[in-house]
Amino acid sequence: MDFMDFYEKTVESKKIFHGRILDLNLDTVCLTNGKISTREIVEHQGAVCVAALTSNKEIVLVKQYRHTLSKCILEIPAGKLEKGEIPLSAAKRELLEETGIKGKDFKSLGYIYVSPGYSNEIIYLYSCHVDSKADMKLDEDEFLEPVYVKFDTALKMVINDEIHDAKTQICILKLNKFI
Amino acid sequence: MDFMDFYEKTVESKKIFHGRILDLNLDTVCLTNGKISTREIVEHQGAVCVAALTSNKEIVLVKQYRHTLSKCILEIPAGKLEKGEIPLSAAKRELLEETGIKGKDFKSLGYIYVSPGYSNEIIYLYSCHVDSKADMKLDEDEFLEPVYVKFDTALKMVINDEIHDAKTQICILKLNKFI
Repeated sequence: MDFMDFYEKTVESKKIFHGRILDLNLDTVCLTNGKISTREIVEHQGAVCVAALTSNKEIVLVKQYRHTLSKCILEIPAGKLEKGEIPLSAAKRELLEETGIKGKDFKSLGYIYVSPGYSNEIIYLYSCHVDSKADMKLDEDEFLEPVYVKFDTALKMVINDEIHDAKTQICILKLNKFI
Repeated sequence: MDFMDFYEKTVESKKIFHGRILDLNLDTVCLTNGKISTREIVEHQGAVCVAALTSNKEIVLVKQYRHTLSKCILEIPAGKLEKGEIPLSAAKRELLEETGIKGKDFKSLGYIYVSPGYSNEIIYLYSCHVDSKADMKLDEDEFLEPVYVKFDTALKMVINDEIHDAKTQICILKLNKFI
């Protein structure tokens, strides 16, 4: 079996919504068995996140209200790619904006598809060390609070199901193999 | 700082799209500073995934075409919760449908938010052992192929950035702490 055995030919693509964060398309596809089906597709420009470690073996998390969940959750600093922006530049920018931290020794931890069933979003993952700290520069509609947590504690919070954000879990679990 | 410092009051919620897989709402919210903003919210009924291990220390992956990405990727068996369905029942059902495998010794690996910035989707994670194997029972518009991979190889594929699905990375990284 190769790629073409599963290929879905797009017959029609209808733009349902064009937003600030995402677009929604309703695609009509021809399946491998010749039947017609629809695919609901969220188009997203991609995002970055960064696990920043202090010299004191802490990881920098941010506590942020998520309207989707109607509650605050803990995540690592993250944000959308701006148009044409290189992922590493976005990671440095988001870390500075959300925490005031200038990072150093940035390393890639790969990239992930967060929900490939309906979204094309890719998140590029980075780690870094904290170099220096200045003031936060949040977006106008962004409210969050940096929280410094010992890395070992954060790892336990992932294993014990106290941190639920997927990108945050992955970065912490991957870093645990390297530090 | 507590929860209410960040709370976003919903002023209006407009249904943009009602689909098979997801709904899209455009919410108008009042921010903590009194300003008005909008939130683009994907509503999803939640999903499950299951990392099934064979007695031969293999993990069962599925190779599946994802229209969102226009390519096939490797994931663990997964699928949407049906209305009112208990996550563990859904995990057993999806594993059987997508691979023909009846699992045993199911254990929870917690739950994750995959993209809390715009989606309320929760995925419940499970591991299990392979008990017996029968025929696959795929949905009419579902085409995929089970792939058995040594667990150590799958772990290397996560670390070396060859498996990119977030839920799959998390289950493999978490299982690596237990087996």
